[in-house]
Amino acid sequence: MTVIEEMGAKAKAASRMLSVAGEKKNVALKAIAKALKDHSEKIIEANKIDLENGKNNQLSASLLDRLMLDNARIEGIADGVLEVAALPDPIGTVISGSQRPNGLRISKVRVPIGVIGIIFEARPNVTADAAVLCLKSGNAVILRGGKEAIHSNQCITRIMQDAIESTGLDRNSVQLIEDTTRQSSVELMGLTEYLDVLIPRGGKGLIRAVVENAKVPVIETGAGNCHVYVDESADIEMAANIIYNAKTSRPSVCNAIETILVHENIAKKALPVIKARLDEKNVQLRGCEKTREILGDSVVPADESDWETEYGDYILAVKVVGSIDEATAHIARYSTGHSECIVTNNYNNANQFKAVVDSAAVYVNASTRFTDGGMFGLGAEIGISTQKLHARGPMGLNELTSMKFIIEGEGQIR
Amino acid sequence: MTVIEEMGAKAKAASRMLSVAGEKKNVALKAIAKALKDHSEKIIEANKIDLENGKNNQLSASLLDRLMLDNARIEGIADGVLEVAALPDPIGTVISGSQRPNGLRISKVRVPIGVIGIIFEARPNVTADAAVLCLKSGNAVILRGGKEAIHSNQCITRIMQDAIESTGLDRNSVQLIEDTTRQSSVELMGLTEYLDVLIPRGGKGLIRAVVENAKVPVIETGAGNCHVYVDESADIEMAANIIYNAKTSRPSVCNAIETILVHENIAKKALPVIKARLDEKNVQLRGCEKTREILGDSVVPADESDWETEYGDYILAVKVVGSIDEATAHIARYSTGHSECIVTNNYNNANQFKAVVDSAAVYVNASTRFTDGGMFGLGAEIGISTQKLHARGPMGLNELTSMKFIIEGEGQIR
Repeated sequence: MTVIEEMGAKAKAASRMLSVAGEKKNVALKAIAKALKDHSEKIIEANKIDLENGKNNQLSASLLDRLMLDNARIEGIADGVLEVAALPDPIGTVISGSQRPNGLRISKVRVPIGVIGIIFEARPNVTADAAVLCLKSGNAVILRGGKEAIHSNQCITRIMQDAIESTGLDRNSVQLIEDTTRQSSVELMGLTEYLDVLIPRGGKGLIRAVVENAKVPVIETGAGNCHVYVDESADIEMAANIIYNAKTSRPSVCNAIETILVHENIAKKALPVIKARLDEKNVQLRGCEKTREILGDSVVPADESDWETEYGDYILAVKVVGSIDEATAHIARYSTGHSECIVTNNYNNANQFKAVVDSAAVYVNASTRFTDGGMFGLGAEIGISTQKLHARGPMGLNELTSMKFIIEGEGQIR
Repeated sequence: MTVIEEMGAKAKAASRMLSVAGEKKNVALKAIAKALKDHSEKIIEANKIDLENGKNNQLSASLLDRLMLDNARIEGIADGVLEVAALPDPIGTVISGSQRPNGLRISKVRVPIGVIGIIFEARPNVTADAAVLCLKSGNAVILRGGKEAIHSNQCITRIMQDAIESTGLDRNSVQLIEDTTRQSSVELMGLTEYLDVLIPRGGKGLIRAVVENAKVPVIETGAGNCHVYVDESADIEMAANIIYNAKTSRPSVCNAIETILVHENIAKKALPVIKARLDEKNVQLRGCEKTREILGDSVVPADESDWETEYGDYILAVKVVGSIDEATAHIARYSTGHSECIVTNNYNNANQFKAVVDSAAVYVNASTRFTDGGMFGLGAEIGISTQKLHARGPMGLNELTSMKFIIEGEGQIR
C-alpha cells in the first residue's frame, strides 16, 4: 500500500463511524472552532514560513494576500466553523417515501457520500472550511492543498485532528496529503477504491487537469464566463446598476460578468449610461464594431477570444445584438453555464430567457453576484458546480450527501 | 470534425429544441410506438442478419436469445414506449423555492441533462428503451450498441428518427454510432465538449472500461454482489423463502443474491431448511467451514474468491457469522453496494442494519429482487446506479434530469 492508499483506507474506516455519528459531529465542530482560536499563534507561526517561502519564490502580492493568516482571519475561520455547526444536519432526512401495493414501505433517506477528496490551491482557509463541511455532512475528507500553503495546512489539520479525537471521533476523519508533488494529485485522482468523489477548487488549469485525468467521479466547479443581456425594454438605470455591480464589486470571482449583450434598439441610449458607470472604476471595454460606432475609439476592438475569456479583471466585453435570440445563441455558444442575467420589462422575453438559457443560475433583473451558497440561503458553500450531474450551482451540505433506499417488509418476495 | 464530434454537435442542437418541447415529446413517443409496430417485419428482417452472423460467430444460446426479436417482443417494446409516454413529464417541476430577505425569488427547477451517451451490449431492445427515456426527459441521446446487434439497432434507430421527424422534432434527438470498433467507444468517452453524461449498460468488463477511460461524467450501473443476512431472531421459513426467491427467481440479474450470512445461533436449525429449498433448483452451495460442519460435504468449500464473486448462476456462497457486526463488516468489505437484506425479528438489529449498511437498497424482511424501477414505483428504469453521485439505485426519469436556479428580482445588487 502506498501512503495515499493507506490514507484512503483510514478515511473509509473513519467515514463509517461518521455516517452514524449524529450530534457528535457538532461537538467535534465546536471543539475545532475552539482549538483554532486557542492555537492561533501556532498557526500564524507556521503561516509565516509559507509567507517567507512565497516571497522568496516571488509570489504575486495578491497570492501572498490570499495565503496570509492573522488573528482576525483565524477568528473568521473559527466563526465559520461555528456557523456550520449551527446548520441543520442533512443526514437521515427522508427525501420521499411510499407504500407499494404489496405492502413494502420504501423510503429514500439522505446519507453521507463517504470519502471526499478536495484538491485546492494557495488558500489555507479552505483547509478548515472544506473539512468542516465534509464533517458536518458525515463524510471523511482527504485534503490536497498547494505547496505554497503546506506549513499552514499541516498546522491547521493537526489542530483539527486533535480536536476531533478529543471528542471521541476518528482523527482520520480529516487528513492532509503532505506530499505536494504532482504525483500525489495524480494518485488521488485514481484512488477509485476509496474515494467517492473529488472536488477541485481553484483556477481553470487545476480544474481542467482534474477533469481530464481523474478516474474517480469529479464535481467540476468554478469557471464563470457570465453574461448580462440588456433587452430592448430594459430600464436603463437598472441595467447600468446591475452591470456595474456584477462587473466591479469583485472582478476576480466566478459570478462576476465578463460580457454584456445589448439590444440594438436600446444600445444608443443605454451604452453611454453603462459606460459612464463603469468609467468610475476604469473598466476597460472591448466592443464589437457597433459598440465602437456608438461609444467611440476609446473602446478596444473585441475579437473572438474576448467572447471566450473569463477576465477576472476590470475588463468587459460588449456586443450589440439584433434580438433576444441572438443573445441566447451567443450565451449558448460562449457561456461556461454559470450565471446569466436578462434585464427586461418584457414578460415574454423574461420567460424565454429563463427557459432557453442553460446555466446553473438564470437571473431576471438582478446581479449575477448573488450566485453563492450564503446568498441562496444554503447556509454554507463548498463551491459552485458548473456541471449538470449530482449538483449544479452553489453546493451546500445537501450536495455533499447521497441517498439510499430503505425497504421494509414482512417476507415479501417477487 | 470527426463523425462522432459531428454527431455530438447535432445532438447538442437537438437537445436545445427538446429542452423546451413540452407535450411534443409525447407526440413523438406515440409516433415511435406506432412506427415500431408498423415496421416490425423490417426490424425482424434486419434482426435475422444479426442472428445469422451471431450463429456464424458461435454466440452462446443465451446471447442469441437476448439478441432475437420477434413480433411479440417488438410489440412489447412498443408498449413500453407508450407506458413511458403516459408517465408525468419531469421537466419544469419546481423542486424547491424561497423568497430571500432582499426580495429575490429563487426557485430550483428540473431541466434536462442535455446530451446522454449510452454504451450497451447485445440487446437491441435497449436501443428503443433507452432512447425513449432520454427523449421523455428532454435529452438528446447518442447510442453506441454492440456489433452483434448492429443491423437491428440501425433499423430501429432509423424508424425512430423518421417518427420523431414526422412530429416536427429534430431527428438527431436520437442517433446511433454505426462504427462498432473499440475506437468509437473511446472517442465517445472523451467527447467532453458535447456529452453531459455517459451511462454504460452491460457486463462488468464494459462498465469497468468506461469508468477507467471516460473523461466525461459517468453513471456506473449494474454490478450486484448482494447479500442476505439471517439474524439470530429470524423467522426461518421467511428466511428460506426470501433466499430461495432472491437466488433462483432470476439468477443472472444484478439484484439476485450471491452470498448468505447466517448467525451461528440459528445456523444449525436454519441452514438445513434453506438448503432443502435451494435443492429444488439444484443450487450449488459454497460454504465456510462451519457451514460444512452443519450441512456436510455436499457443500463445496468456499475460499476468498467466493465472497467476491457475482456468480449470476445457480451458485450461492454461505458463511456462518458470530454477530450482526461480523455480518455488516463482511458486507462492507465484499458488497458492490447494490442490495442487501436482513431477515430478523429484532427491532434494534433491523435498525442497526439499516443504518450501517451502505448500499443503494437496504432491506428488512423482503427479497432483494425488488430493486427495480418498476417495483419501486418509478414507472421505468434506465439502469441501477451503484455509485453515490447524482443517482443511486434504480434510475427513473428524474435521474435523467438536472436542475437550474431561476432568480427573479427588481434590480437587486449585492
